[in-house]
Amino acid sequence: MLYFYIFRSFDGFAESRNYFKTLIYKKMIGIEMVAMKSRNLIKISVLIILIVLLTAGCVERVENLYSTTGVSASPVTPWSDLNIRPQIDPSSYVHPQASVIGAVSIGKNVMISPQASIRGDEGMPIHIGNDSNVQDGVVVHALETSDEEKRPVEKNLVEVGGKKYAVYIGNRVSLAHQAQVHGPASIGDDTFVGMQSFVFKSKVGSRVVLEPGVRIVGVTIPDGRYVPLGMIVSNQSVADNLPVITDDYVFKSLNEGVVHVNTNLAAGYNRMSGNAEVSSSGGHGEERSE
Amino acid sequence: MLYFYIFRSFDGFAESRNYFKTLIYKKMIGIEMVAMKSRNLIKISVLIILIVLLTAGCVERVENLYSTTGVSASPVTPWSDLNIRPQIDPSSYVHPQASVIGAVSIGKNVMISPQASIRGDEGMPIHIGNDSNVQDGVVVHALETSDEEKRPVEKNLVEVGGKKYAVYIGNRVSLAHQAQVHGPASIGDDTFVGMQSFVFKSKVGSRVVLEPGVRIVGVTIPDGRYVPLGMIVSNQSVADNLPVITDDYVFKSLNEGVVHVNTNLAAGYNRMSGNAEVSSSGGHGEERSE
Amino acid sequence: MLYFYIFRSFDGFAESRNYFKTLIYKKMIGIEMVAMKSRNLIKISVLIILIVLLTAGCVERVENLYSTTGVSASPVTPWSDLNIRPQIDPSSYVHPQASVIGAVSIGKNVMISPQASIRGDEGMPIHIGNDSNVQDGVVVHALETSDEEKRPVEKNLVEVGGKKYAVYIGNRVSLAHQAQVHGPASIGDDTFVGMQSFVFKSKVGSRVVLEPGVRIVGVTIPDGRYVPLGMIVSNQSVADNLPVITDDYVFKSLNEGVVHVNTNLAAGYNRMSGNAEVSSSGGHGEERSE
Repeated sequence: MLYFYIFRSFDGFAESRNYFKTLIYKKMIGIEMVAMKSRNLIKISVLIILIVLLTAGCVERVENLYSTTGVSASPVTPWSDLNIRPQIDPSSYVHPQASVIGAVSIGKNVMISPQASIRGDEGMPIHIGNDSNVQDGVVVHALETSDEEKRPVEKNLVEVGGKKYAVYIGNRVSLAHQAQVHGPASIGDDTFVGMQSFVFKSKVGSRVVLEPGVRIVGVTIPDGRYVPLGMIVSNQSVADNLPVITDDYVFKSLNEGVVHVNTNLAAGYNRMSGNAEVSSSGGHGEERSE
Repeated sequence: MLYFYIFRSFDGFAESRNYFKTLIYKKMIGIEMVAMKSRNLIKISVLIILIVLLTAGCVERVENLYSTTGVSASPVTPWSDLNIRPQIDPSSYVHPQASVIGAVSIGKNVMISPQASIRGDEGMPIHIGNDSNVQDGVVVHALETSDEEKRPVEKNLVEVGGKKYAVYIGNRVSLAHQAQVHGPASIGDDTFVGMQSFVFKSKVGSRVVLEPGVRIVGVTIPDGRYVPLGMIVSNQSVADNLPVITDDYVFKSLNEGVVHVNTNLAAGYNRMSGNAEVSSSGGHGEERSE
Repeated sequence: MLYFYIFRSFDGFAESRNYFKTLIYKKMIGIEMVAMKSRNLIKISVLIILIVLLTAGCVERVENLYSTTGVSASPVTPWSDLNIRPQIDPSSYVHPQASVIGAVSIGKNVMISPQASIRGDEGMPIHIGNDSNVQDGVVVHALETSDEEKRPVEKNLVEVGGKKYAVYIGNRVSLAHQAQVHGPASIGDDTFVGMQSFVFKSKVGSRVVLEPGVRIVGVTIPDGRYVPLGMIVSNQSVADNLPVITDDYVFKSLNEGVVHVNTNLAAGYNRMSGNAEVSSSGGHGEERSE
């Protein structure tokens, strides 16, 4: 019985994505060793039962909350009946000081840097594709996609590959430091969203470069274009006439390098924080419910 | 004596501003197991009952702390003799990854999202009105309002309703993602401060819409106007000629919706993190002094 | 045997990078008090002496860790064989909700505010000089300075005083709220980098004022100039013709005041969080290796 509960306990720890491994491990060995020494196993079992009862409600919630630095479920609201948890591929890395909340799916090898916030509690779902990166201070959020009768709000949804999203970020996309993508919005594969740039109510194509500090509102950007430093694009005819990326464009291969670096960072941070062993278990993200 | 120390021990936990739930729980198991070794089961059972009773209060308080990481007092400095603590209405929610420091008062039903920083340690006080929201990555701070002889620095104070503030944010105001309000500054009721916008040394009226990425420096914006996407307003005659919001303005009712969503999010996150029961206790913020 | 495990246990704490001061302290009291109850005082006193000895080393390190939440080593990657740890002068303060990672050196009296991210895991090293400040939400990062054969990438390095850096921030520099400096970049002494501004692939001189929201890309800004609110400077001839700061320039002494306030804030926050005693020990940063 004792071993069973200690065993469950270990199980729980393995799921947690924190720095406590060494600590907790030593500690539990300590408990077992002390317990071993006592002779009075019958009396002890009464105590254990008490502990177990207390634990039942408490530890599970505590464990759950504890392990969720930054990754947590969305709350129940008039427009959502469920505590929805992020789905994060174990090959991806979420820095403990980043925040990922609610209806967010994150693909493989994604690097989420400190101070980023991806919050799927109003517009849902938010998708981040494979090999993409969400850098320091980036915000991803969206206008509500469901009304208070839980009917979809079509104007705040984008459709990609036959599915509807509040925000869709493709594969091998970089969201550079302090950028913001606010749904309804979609970003195509291999696109670079520059530092401090802003995308809202827009569809940005594939292989696009948004240079730093641009603002894209209410337009569709065709594939293979770039938007120069600090430019505001809120008119479709301006969007249609954006320059095409050619071989001599200075940032032509920028995104490729940034993706290469960030997928390696995700792997490196996961190894460093001891998540590597966990990654084959099919577990992902942590969860927290009401 | 033993009970005294255990009592102090729990007291200490409640004061600590950390994520210790799991650890604390294991610790209690540890104490109990060691106690087992003594033969005196009657005394032990008294201890257990005490622990259980203490736990009842303790776990709840710890839970509370968990949800308020990042809320702390301002330091003593040449311009401030006191460790000042934020005053936060219990109906409001501060995400554990947001930071609220010092001379900050936060009204009812306010939602403070991850990565926001409201720092009342230089310009003081900062006020956030009822039903307002401070979204992801927003910064609120202010120039010093007291010199090193502790005399007020009048030029860095704004007066609202006969009281002086470093930053005054009215009721039902939205500070959208990555916006910044830097005092001296005031924002009137029902105003929308757009994503990535910036307000400094300015008074923004009521029912104003600042579209994303605008910069407002050194001016007064009259009630009921809007500032178009990315516009810089640093000249009073430009401010006086800003367009008036009419029924056909596309963002006319934007703020109303954002306020509705965010007050519901504050309530939802509070329920989810178990703060609902606490909310009637009149407690607020977490405290820490030198 | 018991002592051996308790010993290992402390070892574990020292390795963990968490906030456990209060907790660990109480825990030790708890263990001692329970032990009291057994009659075997001689054995207990050996245990207590062991605990005290262990504590001596342990508590101090833990103290250190507590004040440096968010400070951690860089991961091993194809371009870096080492887990590199930040070097932070103990007179500087890193808010627990800021992040400082990898090859970062931080001088004396530096204030690092909540939600800032200084990440030396790609471009290395990053240097922040004495008496400088990195305010809320600021990001400092850099393009890679080493290729996968570990050869330096010269185009992504800046040279200051005969040494090469990914990002060099001088002494008495302010990086105001939500600004970003992305290497390769250098900022000279006594320069003010305004709120929400952006510096990339540039050298900014000494005694420069970048007003809020400016964007500086690919240029060298001469000493003693200012860049007006929201201006984009990405052309060297524009940079060369920037206005010179004269006595009547409104922000002439702004940076001096900001530096004065922030060095005092660093000292105040350190005193408040109990780091004052530690500051003479020469310790810095927190460490973690793979």
